[in-house]
Amino acid sequence: MNSSELYQQYQTITQKAADFNNAAAVLGWDQEVYMPSKGFPFRGRQLATLAAQAHELLTAESYGNLLHELAGRDDLTEEQQHNVRCSLDDYQKNRTLPADFIQQVTQQSSRSYSTWIEARKQNNFSVYARELGKMITLKKQQAELYGYATHPYDALLDDYEKGATVSMLDPIFSEVKEQLPTLLRQITAARQVDDSFFLQHFPRQQQFDFSLEVLRTMGYDFDAGRQDYSEHPFSTSFAPTDVRVTTRVDEHNLASLLWSSIHEGGHALYEQGLPDEQYGMPLGAAVSLSIHESQSRFWENCVGRSLSFWKYFLPKLQTYFPEQLKAVNVETFYKAANKVEPSLIRTEADEVTYHFHVMIRYEIEKALLSNDVKPEDLSDVWNTYYQQYLGISSPDDRQGVLQDVHWSHGSFGYFPTYSLGSFYAAQFFDQAKKDIEDLESKIENGKFDEMLHWLRVNVHQYGRRFTSEELCQRITGSGLKFSSFMNYARNKFAQIYNLQ
Amino acid sequence: MNSSELYQQYQTITQKAADFNNAAAVLGWDQEVYMPSKGFPFRGRQLATLAAQAHELLTAESYGNLLHELAGRDDLTEEQQHNVRCSLDDYQKNRTLPADFIQQVTQQSSRSYSTWIEARKQNNFSVYARELGKMITLKKQQAELYGYATHPYDALLDDYEKGATVSMLDPIFSEVKEQLPTLLRQITAARQVDDSFFLQHFPRQQQFDFSLEVLRTMGYDFDAGRQDYSEHPFSTSFAPTDVRVTTRVDEHNLASLLWSSIHEGGHALYEQGLPDEQYGMPLGAAVSLSIHESQSRFWENCVGRSLSFWKYFLPKLQTYFPEQLKAVNVETFYKAANKVEPSLIRTEADEVTYHFHVMIRYEIEKALLSNDVKPEDLSDVWNTYYQQYLGISSPDDRQGVLQDVHWSHGSFGYFPTYSLGSFYAAQFFDQAKKDIEDLESKIENGKFDEMLHWLRVNVHQYGRRFTSEELCQRITGSGLKFSSFMNYARNKFAQIYNLQ
Repeated sequence: MNSSELYQQYQTITQKAADFNNAAAVLGWDQEVYMPSKGFPFRGRQLATLAAQAHELLTAESYGNLLHELAGRDDLTEEQQHNVRCSLDDYQKNRTLPADFIQQVTQQSSRSYSTWIEARKQNNFSVYARELGKMITLKKQQAELYGYATHPYDALLDDYEKGATVSMLDPIFSEVKEQLPTLLRQITAARQVDDSFFLQHFPRQQQFDFSLEVLRTMGYDFDAGRQDYSEHPFSTSFAPTDVRVTTRVDEHNLASLLWSSIHEGGHALYEQGLPDEQYGMPLGAAVSLSIHESQSRFWENCVGRSLSFWKYFLPKLQTYFPEQLKAVNVETFYKAANKVEPSLIRTEADEVTYHFHVMIRYEIEKALLSNDVKPEDLSDVWNTYYQQYLGISSPDDRQGVLQDVHWSHGSFGYFPTYSLGSFYAAQFFDQAKKDIEDLESKIENGKFDEMLHWLRVNVHQYGRRFTSEELCQRITGSGLKFSSFMNYARNKFAQIYNLQ
Repeated sequence: MNSSELYQQYQTITQKAADFNNAAAVLGWDQEVYMPSKGFPFRGRQLATLAAQAHELLTAESYGNLLHELAGRDDLTEEQQHNVRCSLDDYQKNRTLPADFIQQVTQQSSRSYSTWIEARKQNNFSVYARELGKMITLKKQQAELYGYATHPYDALLDDYEKGATVSMLDPIFSEVKEQLPTLLRQITAARQVDDSFFLQHFPRQQQFDFSLEVLRTMGYDFDAGRQDYSEHPFSTSFAPTDVRVTTRVDEHNLASLLWSSIHEGGHALYEQGLPDEQYGMPLGAAVSLSIHESQSRFWENCVGRSLSFWKYFLPKLQTYFPEQLKAVNVETFYKAANKVEPSLIRTEADEVTYHFHVMIRYEIEKALLSNDVKPEDLSDVWNTYYQQYLGISSPDDRQGVLQDVHWSHGSFGYFPTYSLGSFYAAQFFDQAKKDIEDLESKIENGKFDEMLHWLRVNVHQYGRRFTSEELCQRITGSGLKFSSFMNYARNKFAQIYNLQ
């Protein structure tokens, strides 16, 4: 069979698998957004069937043979070669874990998850320690099955961030530990900004409508997406032509919706910018979790918490809430949007303290994998870290070690991608300011098209053409540097908090 | 392998196929209700992939072997035997048509459909005649492939209504032709009722909210369903625990929403009443299109257009629209709800004239299949029939022979099920009045639980345990009789129109 026919076969299989995965994404979206309460059990089995079908297609031996055959052909285009290489990597990784091992993890995941729920209800980590311990044991086995050069954690990190290793992350989080505490000390010593005006009554519909206006202005295409309410905001994609976001509204805290909506919008703009013609194939998919997060953080923080952004949007926001915001000027608003304060909950943390939350989880995960921390000691270890880096202790487990769901599902290695995303975002934004003339004044005037185009050209169009680090290298001339973020944060907060 | 293990295998396959079909139903619902406009092309391929996967499972030779093996076992429960028998029938029917023939029909369907759209745009049947002719030729071939005892139309009818034949339907539609014209003549000679109050301004949200109240009172479970807007009202099921309805609102015609919402509610109550534990298997599925339609017509017409119903609901409706309805009493409302008037469009027809629309389509389909009518003459044949039975002619093809989409998709044999549904409904309602003490006064008091229970026990719980006719026999002591409908219609309209 000639290469073009073979490639056609490959494309048919990957796109079919994408159809099942995207159908599952529609069912998942519906479950969070509109499904009636009694729908859960059957929806669960429908989702499982779709996921299993996609998995079956992508792990079939015949598919592996096809990929091997294609990998040996020299008459494919460069793009085709790249898709085949990526898919072969994925295939080999997918095949590493025996089916009965995967089943063990799945079953343990559901036990750990329900024990986590129960432990949160009882507000008692010890209820959960044993099941979490079993999950950690399985993840250690998984690391051995995958294999690794240096640290077992490397094997797990790779699931969430291809190529990430302890030896790449340690230097970055060392910088977090060395440089961020000074900034935080300076900020907490300074006079706190006032964000109390966020805590008035802001009716639901107006908040929602304003967020639609922001998304539209950012360049989010509502003919290829929509925004709905859900309990936890998320974005999801069924194809580049149908990428949706959700949000939630707290009528007594305006800050709850604003930046989460921009954040999800950033994720969605990435997915809307992936190339249609590569649907279902590596060149049609996002690079990595960290680059995905770089897109959301770019919009949420670098853009959405900038003074320029609010010079444009505050007057608009005031037309939605004239009474509540009449006494608020843009400086006040900008400072409130950037209030820094140590707090217990990661998902509610500000731009600076956020990375302590992640660094702590990174250190704990690493130590768990190398047996330097025992699961049963996690609550104490957690509190020691929080006291050391954030100067606060959780009054209970629910606001401490039990706050995140990730570990119950066996997601070890996921957390670091959140910080990497922010750091990539700062580095990309630095570069965008160099590449785009007068970027700040464009933002001030609500002109985002050039910036979106810059992201499309530099990031979105490539799909998985480059790794996170290759992409960063291409865009900024170097791999990830913590210094971009640190400079960004120092400058921003020095101005906001009048630091020396 | 023992029978219980074999049966387990069978159940796994059918339920997996149901998962794919139900996932497709979710995607279909979303497409009609919330999908952004650019989502169509990829959604189309996702739907096709899901349908193909379900079809593949249910036509695999190994599945057929399993069914044959199970059909020979004598140690299955009666329910298991019934599921296996039905599934084997379905399998054999599914396997009758060669794959390349199915593909031809699919391709022709998409050509005929787009030509139908074009012909409607040009308001000219002749644009469409040739492609429709090709579809009819294919359907004749399909009848030959299926085989039939008497009339080629029988083979096609069976696709929509198992066991229905020309020799069963001819007597029924003969009665329509003999008995209904007299009633219609009497009505049109009488003084017309006044329904002009429907044509005021009724705001969208209040209409929607009222329809929710009606559905809730009927017994529709909103924890296992929801109502949304769509261009054409429909109901759809993803499992008995998630059955949804849609509606549309015409702010200048209250009648547009009211009965369509009750109609879809009737369909949905049936699906919510199917047994959970038979999910994906014949005993968990609706009997037939006609019995499905009997459930919607039962609620829409026998109940929802009765005087008792509006004695209860009109005062409620008046609280939604106090200004618009203040001068309307229940007699006036009841008469307006039952206005009979010959009209051109089937979907907008009243309870009496509706069956002329169906009968005409039945006669035309039969004649097309037996070569007694040529496709190119359809526009004339259509108008002759409408003149003869309804005393009106369509001023153009769009309101005439081009009004329905069915034929473009190759759905020949579907239309009769609409009338059968109404006739079954009248016969069931007759019986319900005998079985349930004081049914009318219960309706007058908004107490629908006993009636819903009666439908659950007599119809819903059985899934496909009985055929339409067996079910009718069990419930009413005889097969379908047109006389139930005719008596119901004569009594109702004699009273409304003061006939002799």
